[in-house]
Amino acid sequence: MTPTLGVCYYPEHWPEAQWAEDAARMVETGITWVRIGEFAWSLMEPTPDVMDWGWLDRAISVLGGVGLKVVLGTPTATPPRWMLDRHPDMLAHDAAGNPRKFGSRRHYCFSHAGYRSECRRIARLMAERYGRNPHVHAWQTDNEFACHDTTISYSPAAAEAFRDWLAQRYQSTDALNRAWGNVFWSMSYDDWAQIDPPNLTVTEANHPHQLDFKRFSSDQVVAFNRLQCDEIRAHTDAPIIHNFMGRETSFDHFAVSRDLDITSWDSYPIGFLSDRIEETPDFKARFLKQGHPDNQAFHHDIYRACGAMRAGDVPANGRWWVMEQQPGPVNWAPWNPAPLPGMCRLWAWEAIAHGAECVSYFRWRQAPFAQEQMHAGLMRPDNQPAPALAEAAQVAREIAGIGDITAAPAPVGLVLDYDSIWAWEAQPQGADFHGFDLAFDAYRALRRAGQSVDILHPDTADLSGYKLVLAPGLLKIRPALGAALEAFSGIALIGPRTDTKTTELSIPTPMGPNVADMDVTVSLTESLPPIASEPLEQGRFIRWFEHLEGTAPVLLKTAAGQPAIMGGAHLRYLAGWPDHETFARIIRDLCAQAGLVAEDLPDGLRIRDTAEHRFVFNYAAHPVDWNGTTVPAAGVIWQPL
Amino acid sequence: MTPTLGVCYYPEHWPEAQWAEDAARMVETGITWVRIGEFAWSLMEPTPDVMDWGWLDRAISVLGGVGLKVVLGTPTATPPRWMLDRHPDMLAHDAAGNPRKFGSRRHYCFSHAGYRSECRRIARLMAERYGRNPHVHAWQTDNEFACHDTTISYSPAAAEAFRDWLAQRYQSTDALNRAWGNVFWSMSYDDWAQIDPPNLTVTEANHPHQLDFKRFSSDQVVAFNRLQCDEIRAHTDAPIIHNFMGRETSFDHFAVSRDLDITSWDSYPIGFLSDRIEETPDFKARFLKQGHPDNQAFHHDIYRACGAMRAGDVPANGRWWVMEQQPGPVNWAPWNPAPLPGMCRLWAWEAIAHGAECVSYFRWRQAPFAQEQMHAGLMRPDNQPAPALAEAAQVAREIAGIGDITAAPAPVGLVLDYDSIWAWEAQPQGADFHGFDLAFDAYRALRRAGQSVDILHPDTADLSGYKLVLAPGLLKIRPALGAALEAFSGIALIGPRTDTKTTELSIPTPMGPNVADMDVTVSLTESLPPIASEPLEQGRFIRWFEHLEGTAPVLLKTAAGQPAIMGGAHLRYLAGWPDHETFARIIRDLCAQAGLVAEDLPDGLRIRDTAEHRFVFNYAAHPVDWNGTTVPAAGVIWQPL
Amino acid sequence: MTPTLGVCYYPEHWPEAQWAEDAARMVETGITWVRIGEFAWSLMEPTPDVMDWGWLDRAISVLGGVGLKVVLGTPTATPPRWMLDRHPDMLAHDAAGNPRKFGSRRHYCFSHAGYRSECRRIARLMAERYGRNPHVHAWQTDNEFACHDTTISYSPAAAEAFRDWLAQRYQSTDALNRAWGNVFWSMSYDDWAQIDPPNLTVTEANHPHQLDFKRFSSDQVVAFNRLQCDEIRAHTDAPIIHNFMGRETSFDHFAVSRDLDITSWDSYPIGFLSDRIEETPDFKARFLKQGHPDNQAFHHDIYRACGAMRAGDVPANGRWWVMEQQPGPVNWAPWNPAPLPGMCRLWAWEAIAHGAECVSYFRWRQAPFAQEQMHAGLMRPDNQPAPALAEAAQVAREIAGIGDITAAPAPVGLVLDYDSIWAWEAQPQGADFHGFDLAFDAYRALRRAGQSVDILHPDTADLSGYKLVLAPGLLKIRPALGAALEAFSGIALIGPRTDTKTTELSIPTPMGPNVADMDVTVSLTESLPPIASEPLEQGRFIRWFEHLEGTAPVLLKTAAGQPAIMGGAHLRYLAGWPDHETFARIIRDLCAQAGLVAEDLPDGLRIRDTAEHRFVFNYAAHPVDWNGTTVPAAGVIWQPL
Repeated sequence: MTPTLGVCYYPEHWPEAQWAEDAARMVETGITWVRIGEFAWSLMEPTPDVMDWGWLDRAISVLGGVGLKVVLGTPTATPPRWMLDRHPDMLAHDAAGNPRKFGSRRHYCFSHAGYRSECRRIARLMAERYGRNPHVHAWQTDNEFACHDTTISYSPAAAEAFRDWLAQRYQSTDALNRAWGNVFWSMSYDDWAQIDPPNLTVTEANHPHQLDFKRFSSDQVVAFNRLQCDEIRAHTDAPIIHNFMGRETSFDHFAVSRDLDITSWDSYPIGFLSDRIEETPDFKARFLKQGHPDNQAFHHDIYRACGAMRAGDVPANGRWWVMEQQPGPVNWAPWNPAPLPGMCRLWAWEAIAHGAECVSYFRWRQAPFAQEQMHAGLMRPDNQPAPALAEAAQVAREIAGIGDITAAPAPVGLVLDYDSIWAWEAQPQGADFHGFDLAFDAYRALRRAGQSVDILHPDTADLSGYKLVLAPGLLKIRPALGAALEAFSGIALIGPRTDTKTTELSIPTPMGPNVADMDVTVSLTESLPPIASEPLEQGRFIRWFEHLEGTAPVLLKTAAGQPAIMGGAHLRYLAGWPDHETFARIIRDLCAQAGLVAEDLPDGLRIRDTAEHRFVFNYAAHPVDWNGTTVPAAGVIWQPL
Repeated sequence: MTPTLGVCYYPEHWPEAQWAEDAARMVETGITWVRIGEFAWSLMEPTPDVMDWGWLDRAISVLGGVGLKVVLGTPTATPPRWMLDRHPDMLAHDAAGNPRKFGSRRHYCFSHAGYRSECRRIARLMAERYGRNPHVHAWQTDNEFACHDTTISYSPAAAEAFRDWLAQRYQSTDALNRAWGNVFWSMSYDDWAQIDPPNLTVTEANHPHQLDFKRFSSDQVVAFNRLQCDEIRAHTDAPIIHNFMGRETSFDHFAVSRDLDITSWDSYPIGFLSDRIEETPDFKARFLKQGHPDNQAFHHDIYRACGAMRAGDVPANGRWWVMEQQPGPVNWAPWNPAPLPGMCRLWAWEAIAHGAECVSYFRWRQAPFAQEQMHAGLMRPDNQPAPALAEAAQVAREIAGIGDITAAPAPVGLVLDYDSIWAWEAQPQGADFHGFDLAFDAYRALRRAGQSVDILHPDTADLSGYKLVLAPGLLKIRPALGAALEAFSGIALIGPRTDTKTTELSIPTPMGPNVADMDVTVSLTESLPPIASEPLEQGRFIRWFEHLEGTAPVLLKTAAGQPAIMGGAHLRYLAGWPDHETFARIIRDLCAQAGLVAEDLPDGLRIRDTAEHRFVFNYAAHPVDWNGTTVPAAGVIWQPL
Repeated sequence: MTPTLGVCYYPEHWPEAQWAEDAARMVETGITWVRIGEFAWSLMEPTPDVMDWGWLDRAISVLGGVGLKVVLGTPTATPPRWMLDRHPDMLAHDAAGNPRKFGSRRHYCFSHAGYRSECRRIARLMAERYGRNPHVHAWQTDNEFACHDTTISYSPAAAEAFRDWLAQRYQSTDALNRAWGNVFWSMSYDDWAQIDPPNLTVTEANHPHQLDFKRFSSDQVVAFNRLQCDEIRAHTDAPIIHNFMGRETSFDHFAVSRDLDITSWDSYPIGFLSDRIEETPDFKARFLKQGHPDNQAFHHDIYRACGAMRAGDVPANGRWWVMEQQPGPVNWAPWNPAPLPGMCRLWAWEAIAHGAECVSYFRWRQAPFAQEQMHAGLMRPDNQPAPALAEAAQVAREIAGIGDITAAPAPVGLVLDYDSIWAWEAQPQGADFHGFDLAFDAYRALRRAGQSVDILHPDTADLSGYKLVLAPGLLKIRPALGAALEAFSGIALIGPRTDTKTTELSIPTPMGPNVADMDVTVSLTESLPPIASEPLEQGRFIRWFEHLEGTAPVLLKTAAGQPAIMGGAHLRYLAGWPDHETFARIIRDLCAQAGLVAEDLPDGLRIRDTAEHRFVFNYAAHPVDWNGTTVPAAGVIWQPL
């Protein structure tokens, strides 16, 4: 595969006279793909049912005319103002019950049947018109599902759809009452109409009530996306993409991906580290202008796995892009510094090393108006080059020189399960128990050990390609994975919290984990505040510590002599949440036992192998030595394997 | 008196086949009492007016059959879902005006007449059926009044009842306007219907408006409880109990207790220290798995005093229980560590030393489902013993061996007044002036000095049994207590803030305190942020410092020479909020002057005297020496007096 | 000019029998002015349309009879309860859409036409009755516009008025769409009725939408005030005043001042430092009982400039008062310590040195009831003198001895623009970019250099009187000021962020600043979190750093060699937000270059020159030496110039 570059472009924001010059300069920069259209509903349909395709026809023609390949987006994230006159109740409601009003974007409830019809209609009209357009080589549905916390809605439409969803799932309120344990506080229902979304309750709603509402809400996103995919696919053979976000777990990305040919995500490394990753001030200062060294890679691997869902292929072969790549300071984080020179190149190469088919910068030219006017582009608002333009051009030249890049299956697998993340949100038990962070901490430890990693779906049935598999924090090990673990000849480390609940978030009897024939039981659970930890023989658990019982061998002990890891040659249970140092040591030991070469990389240096090369990335602001080669600050090197 | 143990049990959560085995094991553990029924309304009355008593008859029979004494709870904290169809407006409203919905518990407004009728009905039906049942030896009303901030409701029902309450209190709006000082900002009313609850005002509502709403809300709790007591008492001679909470001051516990034969409270030492007590991180880490060494004792003494209200007896003779004793990790604090081995024994013995008739563990077996599934019990969800079971059994054996335990009147009294706590909530003047914390700080200083303490009602008319009395932060010294102070032959220390306001939260003329013939006046008040303090000759005031005038002798001075304590041989005024060290020194000096032996105990060690024994409790995680005897970590010893 | 003292008094709060004694004691204290009436609507009009002027007639007569001059306030900040029956929809709505209810004050929406009529009516009735009263020497409109965040209202009345305002401003929705850049996210409108206030949007509303709502809201305050002024002026020649607040920027104080003869503000130094100024804990502890040494002076200079608006005079000649001067502890800050002895004198003299015609203490006697009962007065609630009374009397004696005090034009000007403050609120880009704080930091640096400062309106057309002018953070340099800067022969320092946007908050082409012929362009903007900064050759930028391009000379560089200040002999651009030390050094250098003597004063010592004297103020709690003279703690000295 030869990776490509892309860019996001908004012809509707600029004079038509400028389009040709923009297109020529994109080509000159080495750009192949251009994404357009995803916020332009009010331009396509200025008044209800009166379409204006002329400008879009011409824009596609101008861009395609110089050889650019168009990704055409459905504009359903930005319904025009007139849509609210047609569907006054289409807005999502917040947890306090207030409608979330018009005036920005994503002002719709996924459950609203009327708005769904409108979305199907606009997708069909676009697909009919452009499905066979020779310049339209890919499609994007909507834009950043869930952005601005929009997955969850407490609107009347959502409440009604939730009741239907529950009725289909449980068939009778008696079954629902049993599944949820509603006998507990006389919470039983005898009519579906009695059930509300779990907001505004006196104290926390029953955990399965919360969890089912999250599952329902995720399913609504899946259904919403599928409607558009179905319409588009009827008229084109071009692949369908959606641009996911980072650190967004409110819907099941695997499930949405089953309807997509290619996945993609929007990568804003600096904003994420500043705003959405918990780290020490010192760490944040050290990587202020580079982003977290593991966050991008983690998402690359997640979306590569998602990209394999539709084809049913192994994670390594998943098709995926970076649809939006940060090109400079953004507008939306609390503070918005500029990337270190070199980072706009490094980020692109890192995506490519993880298998991206395309890295698309957001956006071509900084808009001088509206909400994102302080968001940099490859060009400045005055049409001068911004610093990232030269870095993008450099990447394009380097791609041309490097030859083929082929994904290599990773030796390590890490199971990620959205359903479990929701379960622990519903029932954290410790205020800082976040399922996604637990998986990320495992990933960080693997990266520090120099490992390339495949993310695994929780229903993965075949682990035979892996030497080491981690499955932290899974609500339940479901049958396929359970069988795969039983048959696994490498080393699998599960826990903490793995397989300690039923699907409906109750405690099973016998108490878990009940995986394969491992005789380990979590007999008592402690969550630990930041002021405390559970010391181990070496290192310590933070946040979470489970007391284990059973006959399985104890492989690591706490300082007080309790089990910290129990299990056998192939399947082991981890009884707590190790801090970074402890997790790194545990992973190095496991790698050694699994026959993997384990590094202990400094936190700025990361490596990733393709079939042809080892890529070395230096996120640090100073040069770092790698086996005798100097990797410059914010630099990347590659060596043939 | 011989103390007993109890346990909370939910037969409706378990197969009927298991009841007998459970009952037998309770007896084997040494348990006497079993509380049941308090959340089971939907089981007792599955559909409106169709009662199903069969399961409860059988449960009582099984439990009573092996000799257990049943405490039967009214289920009014958990109205079934159908209740909302009968009374759609029965929900409490939050401060933003939103109804607090069904889906957990306590979803009712205390002021709703329709729901009150339903509660009277279910209490009557239960009392009629079980009032003379030979196994039902006590009753509990509702469950944890105020839990989840439910005392205050801004519902239409509450607004209407508040207007009635005001009309009864003031008789005319003119009188109300005068009492509240409504002339101040043209806030006068001329019709009761014009008066709303004090929420959503542009800036803070008038302080007496806020205070009266708190008084009204407390009175609604009293009335709600009384309705049930009246119904139950008509059909039984068994004592009536309610299970109060810790650090809960939103209603007057003395007033509710006037309708109870026995008070009780639910003691969760670890959750409280983690979540509800302001302390340094170091202190919280030190007592993470033990709880605050003074918090339980303070509440024991408070509820012992409450338990004397109905009989009109002295505080020392109050009848009280611990209705729910933490048995392991709970589910509701931000983090939930496990108790140190020994603490489930220590807590029980501490309650007994303070006069508890019964210590009842919550709950028998951890529920595997619903909101509290992560809350430990004496048994695990898989019916194996949890760690606390053995400790409970040990306490039972020790009780059997120790002989009679008789309450001894304490030599020190501490006045606690809910009305004053509300007054300072309405008008804190310093953001961290909490009346309950001020009383607790006084109590801590007394405990550090090794004193046993009686909590005194603000209308206490006889202080003759005490050598030392403290009355910090009383809105007003009312006539009975004023007379008692005037006649007092020990030493009384009042202030800060004591008797500086009228009943309606205005400033009196002459300015206070106006107690006995003490010539002291608070001429100016300063509140101090955490970054500042007022240094004394020795020690310092934090949070609060009053400038005193008058002819009374100055007994302690600030570093700048202003009075810090003024007064005479028997009655003295404290001009500020001493920090812990300073308070401890002041109390030691007072004890010496009052003829009491003052210790200076380390913060983990606490003592409590009954008529027969001195009990020594070690909350520390390491052994501590007590006069040559080693008290083990998390241990308790007793010595004959 | 001979300055005077005043006091705020509420005859309606006290028995009529006490008025004469109060009046006599005011005169004895040396007080000239007495403000009354501003909260007494329910006394003036106890029932709708039934006026009761008797008590007010008598109060004015008693006060005036002993020679006091009355300032009479319109009571429109406290509409009586019956007003809500007439105008049930007159309340402001908060951002969540809830009405802000009766029960305190300022319970009205500025946009409500019905309530505006009522205010015009009461103002007319008062003016008709008292406009020619010989004792009424000045008028006050309403009280503290904006207090309790009341400028912004999201009520239906505000929404409707906002649409009208937009229609007048833009004339067509197409023009509005273009100005706001609504094409961006399909946010275009085609009917005014579609436009809502910018609350409850899914993510942030478009910045110009937010900015226009702030402009509209400010205009509503201007119009509300003007209605009353017009009514009053028709019946009197006495000057009209409004009492503004400190650190309040939600409306344009210059614009409101165009309708006022005299401006005034309410100065509460201790509450402000505690609650509303971001500073280190150490700084706050150091000035706990004195207030921020620069905050009062800054506001004095702002309101002196406002006071010149109606006359169109230079800022130095603006007429202004302190209408409310803190006399002791207040009630409204989180903590409320007492002023250091001497401060109630120092604050008054500082106001006088900055040109105040009158310093009026709030209030005569502490009210024993209602919301402000813990707010000190010159007298205690028991009618004894409070500490400030003697200090006020001392100021009165000193005024009598000092002779004439004449304002002197300052050599330094600082441009302050409310519109820019709103623009950066709408689009901060860095979470701590506050336009008012940026101006205050510039002012602090100037004060530390010992400079007297005039605050300049952003349309100032003549800078010829100044040697040094600062214009930090102006959205846009408008034509008049641009021309004045072009003609300026002193040194002007603009930036950061100055002239980088259009009036409608877009980015101009060419990119700014576009001032005079300075060839400087802000090519890229970085905001910096507190954990980071941009080091300079000397010092550092915090919060904000702009990359500059152009041919103008670089006068200061960053440590990395980028421009930090660029420009020529007269006009320069500052590329970031200097920390205090750096700003002080920059200002000292500029002063030296501009021919001004620059001090480097310790943070407790401040100086201010009038035509006759140099005043030296010591905010420190210890004596400080000033050129050989000792200035006592909390002291003030003056020396002839």
